[in-house]
Amino acid sequence: MDYPNDQAPGAPVRSGVPEHGRVPKYYAVKARLSALVDTLAEGEALPTERELAVRHEVSRETVRQALRDLLLEGRLRRQGRGTVVAGPKLEQPLSLASYTEGVRRQGRTPGRRLIGLDRFPCPAALAEEIEVARGEPVWHMERVLLADDERVGLESTYVAVARVPALDTGFDPDSSFYAHLREELGIAFGDADERIETVLATPREALLIGTPPALPMLLLHRLSRDTGGRPVERVRTLFRGDRFSFRTRLGAGSRD
Amino acid sequence: MDYPNDQAPGAPVRSGVPEHGRVPKYYAVKARLSALVDTLAEGEALPTERELAVRHEVSRETVRQALRDLLLEGRLRRQGRGTVVAGPKLEQPLSLASYTEGVRRQGRTPGRRLIGLDRFPCPAALAEEIEVARGEPVWHMERVLLADDERVGLESTYVAVARVPALDTGFDPDSSFYAHLREELGIAFGDADERIETVLATPREALLIGTPPALPMLLLHRLSRDTGGRPVERVRTLFRGDRFSFRTRLGAGSRD
Repeated sequence: MDYPNDQAPGAPVRSGVPEHGRVPKYYAVKARLSALVDTLAEGEALPTERELAVRHEVSRETVRQALRDLLLEGRLRRQGRGTVVAGPKLEQPLSLASYTEGVRRQGRTPGRRLIGLDRFPCPAALAEEIEVARGEPVWHMERVLLADDERVGLESTYVAVARVPALDTGFDPDSSFYAHLREELGIAFGDADERIETVLATPREALLIGTPPALPMLLLHRLSRDTGGRPVERVRTLFRGDRFSFRTRLGAGSRD
Repeated sequence: MDYPNDQAPGAPVRSGVPEHGRVPKYYAVKARLSALVDTLAEGEALPTERELAVRHEVSRETVRQALRDLLLEGRLRRQGRGTVVAGPKLEQPLSLASYTEGVRRQGRTPGRRLIGLDRFPCPAALAEEIEVARGEPVWHMERVLLADDERVGLESTYVAVARVPALDTGFDPDSSFYAHLREELGIAFGDADERIETVLATPREALLIGTPPALPMLLLHRLSRDTGGRPVERVRTLFRGDRFSFRTRLGAGSRD
């Protein structure tokens, strides 16, 4: 039976155990901890590493490896010196709606923290993407994304200074950039090209977001255009892979 | 300058180096190897671990850690006992088009290898998703996905036996299931809900796809409906995170 009755539809087949039945010791422990996590509520604490090592008759290093996997996958999270059951991943819609709207729809409070705002002459590769002349001034705004004060992502927005001249004085970086474009500058989005991949956090990113280094992240590249088809912004958004998933509705029109 | 002229638009800010300038030793080596990779063509071999250790005056373990990151990110790939520069990630469209069509559009030859085809009584959670009665027979078809004979993913398709009665005898598992539905059964897709997340490969999955265990993967959950709005299939597709990215065009209608 490849699909036991007690298994959720999206779970790995055979709970990830190969047909020959042999798994690394840490994975056997991980499977048992995963079953334990299923019985606990969000926020409940796991026993200590030492207790788990005794209970499963393995070394503490083996327990640590099992916990590390469950942390990377977002089943657990660190809290103080302990480990507790994490909540479900946030489901962000893949749509022209902003981060702000996506987080609000899930009943969370979105926030942003400015890391830096610089203007610099547009380099060649970016110039080609956003269709401005090379050397024309562009802004780079970098912000940490928050959900209920938890750091969940890091976003770089590149936009021509000519498009948003007063970004440094007329915009509160802890507010929605899309709302600003719409309400202050009358810029409405028409469409966007988006690309999603998984990458490892760099040391700088891990520091800014407060994640373990080399945590798998979801990286979204976006090029947004206004209703006239003119590029507005190039965005690079890194989301914690343990905290986010993306959902979309594909229609017959999205065959591309 | 947060955006040096020689940096691609999607690259990490400051090449991932924190403002305080300190990075782990393996990351400094990784950055130098990454610059080296940029100068090489796809398929070109890297120097051996031993040579790299001597050249960068670090231990072989540090070199290995740097190489591991670049392998996980898909910049490098193993070839025999050596390490060579990998090609760019495949860009799969997020659309109702099938895997087959997506891979073909990139000039690669799609393939599939059957792992197993079973029928079993539909469990409760799946029954709710695909809107069949609990206990009604459903198929589970599991296939490894290939691109130019390279194993790149693993797909589980769940579909009611009543919908596709002759899946075991009337369908060649190394062909497109979507083409089969369309041409043999007259089932056309109307829309689908899709969710994307990053997960670690389980031991079984790593074995079947031939990846290192714990490689970050992109996991797509899909629920497809026919043009009448009735669910057709529940699919779980795992794609190698080092070999795939997904792209989509968001329109004003996709605000959801």
